[in-house]
Amino acid sequence: MLKKTVSQLQPYVPETPLPELEKQLGLASVVRLSANENPFGTSPKVQQALQNWDFSNSHYYPDGDAAALRQAVADYVKVAPERLLFGNGLDEVIELVSRTFLETGDEVLELGPTFSEYKLHAQIEDTIVHDVAVQADGIADLTALAAAITPKTKLIWLCNPNNPTGTAVPQTEIAKFMAQVPRTVLVLIDEAYIDFVDKLATYTALPLLDQYDNLMVLRTFSKAYGLANFRVGYAVMPPKLAPSLQSVRLPYNLSAIAQLAAQAALADQAFLQATVIRVRQARQQWECFLQQHGFTFYHSQANFTFFQAPHALKLADYLLHNGFIVRTGLRPDWLRITFGTAEQNEKLQQLILAFYEK
Amino acid sequence: MLKKTVSQLQPYVPETPLPELEKQLGLASVVRLSANENPFGTSPKVQQALQNWDFSNSHYYPDGDAAALRQAVADYVKVAPERLLFGNGLDEVIELVSRTFLETGDEVLELGPTFSEYKLHAQIEDTIVHDVAVQADGIADLTALAAAITPKTKLIWLCNPNNPTGTAVPQTEIAKFMAQVPRTVLVLIDEAYIDFVDKLATYTALPLLDQYDNLMVLRTFSKAYGLANFRVGYAVMPPKLAPSLQSVRLPYNLSAIAQLAAQAALADQAFLQATVIRVRQARQQWECFLQQHGFTFYHSQANFTFFQAPHALKLADYLLHNGFIVRTGLRPDWLRITFGTAEQNEKLQQLILAFYEK
Repeated sequence: MLKKTVSQLQPYVPETPLPELEKQLGLASVVRLSANENPFGTSPKVQQALQNWDFSNSHYYPDGDAAALRQAVADYVKVAPERLLFGNGLDEVIELVSRTFLETGDEVLELGPTFSEYKLHAQIEDTIVHDVAVQADGIADLTALAAAITPKTKLIWLCNPNNPTGTAVPQTEIAKFMAQVPRTVLVLIDEAYIDFVDKLATYTALPLLDQYDNLMVLRTFSKAYGLANFRVGYAVMPPKLAPSLQSVRLPYNLSAIAQLAAQAALADQAFLQATVIRVRQARQQWECFLQQHGFTFYHSQANFTFFQAPHALKLADYLLHNGFIVRTGLRPDWLRITFGTAEQNEKLQQLILAFYEK
Repeated sequence: MLKKTVSQLQPYVPETPLPELEKQLGLASVVRLSANENPFGTSPKVQQALQNWDFSNSHYYPDGDAAALRQAVADYVKVAPERLLFGNGLDEVIELVSRTFLETGDEVLELGPTFSEYKLHAQIEDTIVHDVAVQADGIADLTALAAAITPKTKLIWLCNPNNPTGTAVPQTEIAKFMAQVPRTVLVLIDEAYIDFVDKLATYTALPLLDQYDNLMVLRTFSKAYGLANFRVGYAVMPPKLAPSLQSVRLPYNLSAIAQLAAQAALADQAFLQATVIRVRQARQQWECFLQQHGFTFYHSQANFTFFQAPHALKLADYLLHNGFIVRTGLRPDWLRITFGTAEQNEKLQQLILAFYEK
């Protein structure tokens, strides 16, 4: 009864909610540093904005066009409002793009390793995914990526900074890459972590959008804006693709509360900047720690670090029993850890040292 | 670049938001009776529950398993929690089911007319949709539906009560129908409007779920619970299909606020019952009006009426300029009107009479 591609998927294993996990472990609190959430929370201006939400609108469908949020984001990224596509988190944008473009036998290119959902949705659409390994320094190999293009290639996913390696390729390199990509291939640059890079103008692909009608840039409110719970992501589309993507999109995919929260978060650029500064400090501090203790790691431009940790599964288990969830399973004996608060980072680093001293 | 099926879709035309429309028409307020929303609003207990939402969780991803809501709904519909599938509105459930089961060349059956999204998502999945016309009284023709099954039939959508006809088929008829459906065909009963029927036990297909592993029932919080803005729908799945549907589902598709709102709405059954009673009164009053004035209409079991209105487009335009949006375009010279408050219904009926007296 199932579609062939779906019957081949791994069954879904839901993550244990934190309160449940705390009960299981007998711990007062567990800190999740496995999902690249913002440890500095969310702008208080979002909370104020939500207090002004008129509850008497609850029984109405939300504005399917997200007009106010659309205009605010359009002003922020400096594109025409009709070029924006909103999703229930970037998860939905990734699904929507996959469903709109991919057909049986198409090929999809992505980095190896990268965010798992590109492949999941490509597989559901019955396509073949090729992972192009990152270089020894963890940075995307755009030469190899361009060389991997075949006449069957339909989409190329470039996560920048890349999850989980944390590394980023500069805009100048992306421009050179785009010049080699046939106009029949759509390139998707997932900038979920772009706010954290050392210098935004050096890395974002937004300025390239006007030159290429086969380029999309994806952004989210779930990371630096601290709105993961509200599920708002967006993409900037080539104008010619906007009507089709809007036809496939669910008409009321963002609640009014989600729209309002994202708009308030975007308006508070001071909060964003404060978060970014703290994340950069944490990054520098973590990389000092890793270097000092001889760990192999990649230079991160994101809000997490990816490093080689011998006996990683045992270490992760030790950390879990001491109140920290970190991310395993992305590469054997490597861990991905989201930067926490200064206090959390210090505690975690002490635990890591204690584990290896045992 | 687009998938073939997507390039054939009609371009999306976003609905004009109410405030925008009011400005355009120069009206102080416009009442939307075109979207089957609940004119009696939302339980105040939802508002209380939202006030208790801990904003400091905003930067965390929501519980992807929706555990508390899942348990509450499981208790309400009396099924095992793992048989529930939640969606960002039933829109997402319809998309998810279509994407999980449909492949090129499959056939889908639905009523004609019915809710448009079944066909939209079936078309995106490159399948052929057959509309099986409702009977002269607007009620689904289950004999014809069973007769339309071919070896290629994969899904059958049965909206009950049906949108836009408003009519419902009793559970006993559905049971006879299911006995004729091969176990390789999945039947989806969309009960978005089931709360409004005269007697729930007569119409709901829930009791049939244990006999058929090729049956799913869909429910929503957008209609009788007055939560359209929060986007929460769910389906009860056959146990054998649950892992696959969960694999395809977006892992964090419901915000914590949406989960909390739905849970609070479900808990306030007194509000639901009060809404249902008022809707049934409005239904009786509308049908008296339509009968008295010689309109052809179907006997509704939902929160709207579907009736033949000569010059329907002109009538709808007249109503719009007098502050009421109604639904056209579902069948030539027929209108679908959501029941409003007693005052709104009276005003609207006066306008309808005034239009025809001109």
